[in-house]
Amino acid sequence: MKTTESLARFVSEYDTRRIPDAVRHQAIRSLVNWAGCALGGARHPAVENALAAFRPFIGPAQASILGRPERVDALHAALFNGISSHVLDFDDTHLATLVHPSGPVLSALLAFAQYHPIDGKTFVDAIVFGIEVECRVAMGVGPAHYDAGWHVTGTAGGFGAAAAVGRALKLDAKLMAWAFGIVATQAAGLREMFGTMCKSLHPGRAAQSGLSAVLLARAGFTSSSRAIEAPRGFAHVLSSDPQLADATSGLGEQWQTLANSFKPYACGVVIHPIIDGCLALSSAQAYAPDEIEQVALQVHPLVLELTGKTQPLTGLEGKFSVFHSAAIALLKGSSTAWNYSDQAVRDPAVIALRERVTAQPQAGMREDEARITIRLKNGQTIAHHVEHALGSLERPMSDSDLSGKFKDLARDIWPAGQMEEALALCWRADTLADAGEIGNRLAAP
Amino acid sequence: MKTTESLARFVSEYDTRRIPDAVRHQAIRSLVNWAGCALGGARHPAVENALAAFRPFIGPAQASILGRPERVDALHAALFNGISSHVLDFDDTHLATLVHPSGPVLSALLAFAQYHPIDGKTFVDAIVFGIEVECRVAMGVGPAHYDAGWHVTGTAGGFGAAAAVGRALKLDAKLMAWAFGIVATQAAGLREMFGTMCKSLHPGRAAQSGLSAVLLARAGFTSSSRAIEAPRGFAHVLSSDPQLADATSGLGEQWQTLANSFKPYACGVVIHPIIDGCLALSSAQAYAPDEIEQVALQVHPLVLELTGKTQPLTGLEGKFSVFHSAAIALLKGSSTAWNYSDQAVRDPAVIALRERVTAQPQAGMREDEARITIRLKNGQTIAHHVEHALGSLERPMSDSDLSGKFKDLARDIWPAGQMEEALALCWRADTLADAGEIGNRLAAP
Repeated sequence: MKTTESLARFVSEYDTRRIPDAVRHQAIRSLVNWAGCALGGARHPAVENALAAFRPFIGPAQASILGRPERVDALHAALFNGISSHVLDFDDTHLATLVHPSGPVLSALLAFAQYHPIDGKTFVDAIVFGIEVECRVAMGVGPAHYDAGWHVTGTAGGFGAAAAVGRALKLDAKLMAWAFGIVATQAAGLREMFGTMCKSLHPGRAAQSGLSAVLLARAGFTSSSRAIEAPRGFAHVLSSDPQLADATSGLGEQWQTLANSFKPYACGVVIHPIIDGCLALSSAQAYAPDEIEQVALQVHPLVLELTGKTQPLTGLEGKFSVFHSAAIALLKGSSTAWNYSDQAVRDPAVIALRERVTAQPQAGMREDEARITIRLKNGQTIAHHVEHALGSLERPMSDSDLSGKFKDLARDIWPAGQMEEALALCWRADTLADAGEIGNRLAAP
Repeated sequence: MKTTESLARFVSEYDTRRIPDAVRHQAIRSLVNWAGCALGGARHPAVENALAAFRPFIGPAQASILGRPERVDALHAALFNGISSHVLDFDDTHLATLVHPSGPVLSALLAFAQYHPIDGKTFVDAIVFGIEVECRVAMGVGPAHYDAGWHVTGTAGGFGAAAAVGRALKLDAKLMAWAFGIVATQAAGLREMFGTMCKSLHPGRAAQSGLSAVLLARAGFTSSSRAIEAPRGFAHVLSSDPQLADATSGLGEQWQTLANSFKPYACGVVIHPIIDGCLALSSAQAYAPDEIEQVALQVHPLVLELTGKTQPLTGLEGKFSVFHSAAIALLKGSSTAWNYSDQAVRDPAVIALRERVTAQPQAGMREDEARITIRLKNGQTIAHHVEHALGSLERPMSDSDLSGKFKDLARDIWPAGQMEEALALCWRADTLADAGEIGNRLAAP
């Protein structure tokens, strides 16, 4: 099994004319979604604090931090955009692996494109290679990897970032394999960090590590050529049950990019069907919130494992609380990124309702399914069953949904006209003479 | 078990008056040994290539790359010095864990000291905390960690670097625990990389990651406070059999710094008793090299597992070949860093003798023990048994040995007088008003 070489050859040698239009369009959708998330997260304390920590060490002004005025060296831009694009927990998800592909891929690629000009067609193709490889590496370590405590976006992310930049740079297969080796030996990220700023450090570091790896390999910095599959390599060391065949089977024919999904709500994807249900119940307006006696959720078992925080104290912790998410959706009748501010989590009305929410894991339920039952103080019960959450592969967000999400997240950065222009530029990324223009336009004035 | 908090409190709160003089002296010996290794590795292609790759992204000129004229930002200095100090495989070894403590610790600490002035006493104390914590974390993951394929210098190294810089900065225990969390979630390094430049990337990244972690924690970048011991934290995710009690039992009373050993030879430590034996046989001069029919080595089983390369093609691969190491020691009658040049590995005389070397694993043999038997073409056999290798805890290198090693490694950088001054400065590190002076003095003109 020559996994590393197969993935390297795919990135270096695959004929881009074979990439279906739908795949390329999905890559652009990933760009729009990623950019919106990075703009929305640009002023988050995680980004502010990381920037304060590293400011004295930053190199030449080569690339943008999206939604901010500072220009920094490309490696730091990759880091900061990786953090900001994930910090709202609003970025894309490859549902089969729970990897968030675009943070590492696009944070590295756009930073690189601002340093080293590449055309829009090359840029969009590179996104495809990045997302494909990142998802494939995540599939290759199998579910045992995430189960053991690895945050797969941190560990597989660097491969995606390296694939995207390596393709843009036309790295040959030997150097591409080295770049994967350099990434493999820096792959990291623990699930213990969920609920802290370190969670969003993972895609940031993955982006920086993937970009670094390509630069190192190109400069002749040697690595193993079988870093993924070797007995003491990435897959066997970081997984008790690797599924290496899944990393390459059908590569270039079955597109993981098409299996990439976008979140309508700024929290763990397992909570989404519950929010859908709460919004449906709220919009029916059959009762006032203070009439609610109890909210009983029936959910997939992973919901409590991943998002079981009963008493979140910060916005970040709120994203890992199905109880907060349900309560605020019921109260506000909407679910935007601003539902996960520190202020929202500490709102006494939200806390009062949150304490009435219970959740019961239900064997046999799908991850994008939920049942919500509200018992009112008068004894009446109202129930709602969600078959497939919005944002699932069965019910994807439309292009217009994605534009709306971008606009909501970017609302405070530019005047409306400029924002529309920035958004339009993303949608026509593949036609640009210089893809770095996206980075220039998405910086704050 | 509050491993993270215990280590953080040790670093933040331990009274340095309780550090024994012997421990502090051993820290200075570690500095001398580390500096020599970094000077000797300064022109290695791994360093040249990494510098070429990152040069366009480097920040302000804050700190030295030892043995080179370039000044770079402190984070990149930590990276490059971490690479150069390990690339000759000549740095220190904590034998109980096989961790190489000083690369991460001193590469981070000296770079930081050039950016943020600290006095020599604080500097030497900080080395002690760095080495103690790095070794303790390596002990805490148990032997299963290395056995699974982790390069423990890469994974535990960042904790040591963070401890050293955190102590120098007087970080409180809460922020120190966060810094350990930030390090934990970036910990990486695979044994598959042995024999490639990526092996020395590990202490470089660990140094950079440890320094970064302290800067991030100080800026309020949040992390888990129980990153080491949590179920999805560092120890349980990166080891199938953690030994967490070993991470803290006797902390501040039994000093791992005293169990840190220094290598007289520039290759894997398991080969050292064999080189000792070959040098002893060579100095006896009982035969000419071309009279040798066969060289039979009886060795600890780990020797073949770690250094069993029969046909090394580069100097780097030569370090992982017990066959090359024995042959060249027998031929040259000495073993310096230059025995592991590409040229030395490709020398036909060395290859001819190397092909006559066989090695037999011997159950029950200690790691610092070996038996060498030479059979001459005339049928005569000569044997030598090494009880304890030079550099072992039973037969440590003297201060004068370490000075000699430093001078050999630094021989081409300065005129002799300047080299003696640089070396003397290291030996009196604890008396300096500004420890950053060491970095200034160890740069090349």
